[in-house]
Amino acid sequence: MVDYNEAFRAAVDAVRAEGRYRVFADLERMRGRFPTALYYGGHNERERQPREITVWCSNDYLGMGQHPAVMEAMQNALDKVGAGAGGTRNIAGTTHYHMKLEAALADLHGKDAALLFTSGYVSNEATLSTISRILPDCVILSDELNHASMIEGIRGGRSIKRIWRHNDLEHLEELLAELPAERPKVIAFESVYSMDGDIAPMAEICDLAEKYNAFTYLDEVHAVGMYGKRGGGVSERDGVAHRIDIIEGTLGKAFGIMGGYIAANASIVDAIRSYASGFIFTTALSPVLVAGALASVETLKESNHLREQHQERAARLKKLLADAGLPVMESVSHIVPVKVGDPVQCKRVSDYLLEEHNIYVQPINYPTVPKGTERLRFTPTPLHTDDHMDKLIKSLDDVWTALKLKRAA
Amino acid sequence: MVDYNEAFRAAVDAVRAEGRYRVFADLERMRGRFPTALYYGGHNERERQPREITVWCSNDYLGMGQHPAVMEAMQNALDKVGAGAGGTRNIAGTTHYHMKLEAALADLHGKDAALLFTSGYVSNEATLSTISRILPDCVILSDELNHASMIEGIRGGRSIKRIWRHNDLEHLEELLAELPAERPKVIAFESVYSMDGDIAPMAEICDLAEKYNAFTYLDEVHAVGMYGKRGGGVSERDGVAHRIDIIEGTLGKAFGIMGGYIAANASIVDAIRSYASGFIFTTALSPVLVAGALASVETLKESNHLREQHQERAARLKKLLADAGLPVMESVSHIVPVKVGDPVQCKRVSDYLLEEHNIYVQPINYPTVPKGTERLRFTPTPLHTDDHMDKLIKSLDDVWTALKLKRAA
Ligand SMILES: Cc1ncc(COP(=O)(O)O)c(C=O)c1O
Ligand SMILES: Cc1ncc(COP(=O)(O)O)c(C=O)c1O
Repeated sequence: MVDYNEAFRAAVDAVRAEGRYRVFADLERMRGRFPTALYYGGHNERERQPREITVWCSNDYLGMGQHPAVMEAMQNALDKVGAGAGGTRNIAGTTHYHMKLEAALADLHGKDAALLFTSGYVSNEATLSTISRILPDCVILSDELNHASMIEGIRGGRSIKRIWRHNDLEHLEELLAELPAERPKVIAFESVYSMDGDIAPMAEICDLAEKYNAFTYLDEVHAVGMYGKRGGGVSERDGVAHRIDIIEGTLGKAFGIMGGYIAANASIVDAIRSYASGFIFTTALSPVLVAGALASVETLKESNHLREQHQERAARLKKLLADAGLPVMESVSHIVPVKVGDPVQCKRVSDYLLEEHNIYVQPINYPTVPKGTERLRFTPTPLHTDDHMDKLIKSLDDVWTALKLKRAA
Repeated sequence: MVDYNEAFRAAVDAVRAEGRYRVFADLERMRGRFPTALYYGGHNERERQPREITVWCSNDYLGMGQHPAVMEAMQNALDKVGAGAGGTRNIAGTTHYHMKLEAALADLHGKDAALLFTSGYVSNEATLSTISRILPDCVILSDELNHASMIEGIRGGRSIKRIWRHNDLEHLEELLAELPAERPKVIAFESVYSMDGDIAPMAEICDLAEKYNAFTYLDEVHAVGMYGKRGGGVSERDGVAHRIDIIEGTLGKAFGIMGGYIAANASIVDAIRSYASGFIFTTALSPVLVAGALASVETLKESNHLREQHQERAARLKKLLADAGLPVMESVSHIVPVKVGDPVQCKRVSDYLLEEHNIYVQPINYPTVPKGTERLRFTPTPLHTDDHMDKLIKSLDDVWTALKLKRAA
């Protein structure tokens, strides 16, 4: 007799045994006061009076989730059209908002067309698995640090996969050179890698793609809104967007809302639109979100102001951490990781910061990052003030002393 | 040399050649006036002045997408917390709204716990593929008409799959009996099948599951909110919810918004929460949507009023269609399909209704339904008045005559 409940219990126990059981922090954001939020206590604790904390690990990188233009657009859409789309894109669920946002995203990336998905995760999974269907004998060359959603999409497509060492051009070329010319090749990679904050050598990857006639698929999830003159991502900043076949992005990070998309030439978008199960058979994004995303994208197209503030904030935080002898990891982007190097200590630091200093930063442990590189991952935004930073540094200094953690060399 | 663009173009051409190229209707819903909406013309047409049409194919089955309680809750959440969750569930994206909605959904189905996903599609895909991981040698017995999202989840999990003929208990038993006792078995099925409107023999399926010690996975996407005393679906109506291991639902159809969920015992939910990639690695649902969904679920728990109106409306429409000699297909639910039986005619009827009568009902063709059973699928709601219905019948009568279509026997 199979004991099903026992199997599920054992699966949870295994996660616990590895020290990776997750307790979600129960938060309530406060519009107009980001990065301040209310904290209701962990999942397992007795509920108690919520208290104010400072969020240091949100991916609402620019605070667009409370931007007045976004609020107003969502407000208007809610008043005008109501809550949901009411159907899949093909059956009553395409609204004029969807059409306008798709046009705005195509324009953002200088492409013919764009296609919305319910999330960045779904856009990667659905698109990559559909590419395998359209190019059935293709080989997908995937950066070893690619996101779970890309991995699932590649896995779902069942093409042959070759993994190249992270950002290693020589290794990528070696793998490309091994493949016959007539074999379709898809290079899949990200721009900003979100756990380390490093950036792909995009122009050089495009050179290789041209040399070996490979198709390029780029995840700009942690860069759209934040890099490039109009927020088109690193591909805009580096002037290579036209050399990338498919650019994928999210509406849930710098744009502050939720949803995902791809931008590409007309026939690619039309093919994905026509074949991708994860696009076709699901309720369309709520027009309220779509209206907000449109306002967010347009706002960030128009001015570099928030992007500049964002970079200034990140640079200042990195400097303060280094000056305080805290082991900040090298990063060329807005992401500021600080190494702890042990999963138990990492969790302990995070708990201590929350309990003693009302600072919320989630510990990042294996399997999200390799063992031995456990870290805190700070995401300063334009709304983190000097005061927030000074308090953070003091608190980190305190916990580093209290827990006898290793300082920077 | 591989010509990538040519491959994508050819893929689109193949869809066109099969007559299944989709043109999305560009709509704008009108809060307070559902099922009336503005129609902006098809994707490919020159944009023109929008005009008012009546939507007859929305899955906002009860009009909750414009319900005052839902509007107010979304309004309040938008004011209070802003646009997005700001992170994945584990990293800054769990809000108090998420916790409350998960509790409300667990209560709705009489289960220990519930887990939110970004869509019903993702909840099926992520959960079913994770079940295969937790029960690695399991066999999944899948109803042949199961939704694409279940099929993708089962495919992703790579367990052995056995397909049983739609709602055929004998065939299901035959397949169960063939399997060794020690082999884990998962029966996956839906309650209301959305294209035909028939309902699974749920108690009997549970009997078989008990007899053969199988695990049960039920998609109630087209039933939650609409069946059962509190909107718990057919499993509530039939008094079998406690016999189902995992109940899956959507927030995007009768609840009027978007998002998906599962409800189950605590260890099942905790295991899916801890392992499912599609749950873990994605931005959490916007708290604005979550707040709206909570209001919607609670509103539909409290009163049967809308459910009764809904059933009355569906019964009336079926009768009117039958009386007019139109080929309405048998359906025991709120879904009212009318057979056309040919893809080209089906599209033509739909175009004619939209152009001549300002009535929008999407043609449903292969592969969504089997060839030869192409149909119009009407979804009357409590907001479709007698006048709407009379106008619909007259318009159908007109198009049936104009296009010389077959009447009912
Ligand atoms: C690199 C990368 N791609 C895709 C995603 C998924 O995007 P979304 O949160 O919109 O589902 C994420 C994170 O969530 C990510 O880090
Ligand atoms: C039976 C069934 N399951 C799941 C889904 C997916 O739900 P959602 O629209 O919330 O993604 C749908 C339709 O979209 C469906 O018809």
